[in-house]
Amino acid sequence: MANYSSRHLEYAIRTIGQLPGIGRKSALRIALFLLKNKSTLLPELIESFEGIRLNIQHCKACHNLSDTDQCSICGDRSRQKNVICIVESERDVIAIEDTGQYHGLYHVLGGIISPIDGVGPQDLNIASLLERIDQQNISELIMAISPTIEGETTIFYLTKLLKNHKVRISIIARGVAFGGELEYADGVTLGRSIAARTNIELTESA
Amino acid sequence: MANYSSRHLEYAIRTIGQLPGIGRKSALRIALFLLKNKSTLLPELIESFEGIRLNIQHCKACHNLSDTDQCSICGDRSRQKNVICIVESERDVIAIEDTGQYHGLYHVLGGIISPIDGVGPQDLNIASLLERIDQQNISELIMAISPTIEGETTIFYLTKLLKNHKVRISIIARGVAFGGELEYADGVTLGRSIAARTNIELTESA
Repeated sequence: MANYSSRHLEYAIRTIGQLPGIGRKSALRIALFLLKNKSTLLPELIESFEGIRLNIQHCKACHNLSDTDQCSICGDRSRQKNVICIVESERDVIAIEDTGQYHGLYHVLGGIISPIDGVGPQDLNIASLLERIDQQNISELIMAISPTIEGETTIFYLTKLLKNHKVRISIIARGVAFGGELEYADGVTLGRSIAARTNIELTESA
Repeated sequence: MANYSSRHLEYAIRTIGQLPGIGRKSALRIALFLLKNKSTLLPELIESFEGIRLNIQHCKACHNLSDTDQCSICGDRSRQKNVICIVESERDVIAIEDTGQYHGLYHVLGGIISPIDGVGPQDLNIASLLERIDQQNISELIMAISPTIEGETTIFYLTKLLKNHKVRISIIARGVAFGGELEYADGVTLGRSIAARTNIELTESA
């Protein structure tokens, strides 16, 4: 460990270096940058960190990140209220919102079933999902969960659990990525995308 | 710009994204990581940022970063007090300290002479350097300044300015890097390292 001439600098480099993707050299660079901008960016960062610490909570309905009891997506009158997209984490909500292709509601499970990590169905936000389906007029549930072993297990569990509810259950399309080249697709994806091939409809291609 | 469900999250991502080397995706990742660790790492980061804001100053003698009027290097009794290494920035002090090869004092210029950027000798910590040389018993000044055009200009200026002071002026060795391969060295470095070749002393090689 380097012998810095300032203990405050040393402490800052040690804490900044604990952030994901930040090594010691980047931490030093960031600390010196903050020192240089200590009357502009630094107070803003402290303020924003306090905001994260004190004000971000989870939406009571969908468990997405929110500043209030109800998140801005659940509270948005223009969104489709009868479709719920089920995702693993808040990050997935952001990724789907970024596409601008979905206009319904979400339900954040807060994880996926993973016996190795000791995560079972009781650890996920499933009870509140059943409640929403029963109390609101939900017509479709979209499973937007990663196609991993744990993801597939979670999808299978939820589908079985919901089989007596009158709700359509769908799953996002999986296959070779758009813009990707076939020769670089992994074998499982390529094999499954052939098995799950769909007919080309003339109305689509026209 | 994505439509985040939390304004506090959005603000945090925007401010974190202003740090050097941090893009929008990394900023999101860091913000969510902080949210997850809001009772452990987050308060430590806020504390360390307050430390940068309020407690880091510059050493009155050498202008290095310090928590007090005198930095820990200037105050270290075990260091050689008659040698001063002249560097451009605090970052260079850290880099040289990391080598563990230097045991004298430093003097941080706070920049180098660069007419294009409007930086002249009057903008650098030169007056205090002359004061130190006159008042203390300094026997050697080591120029540890980058071998760029601006760096060479600064070295030339200082050498001329100090020519009537009874002090040895030296410069760190420049040439091909240890561990580097000759064919990948740039032409200027390689050419100058040939021109500035030194004799191999048997005492060194034995």
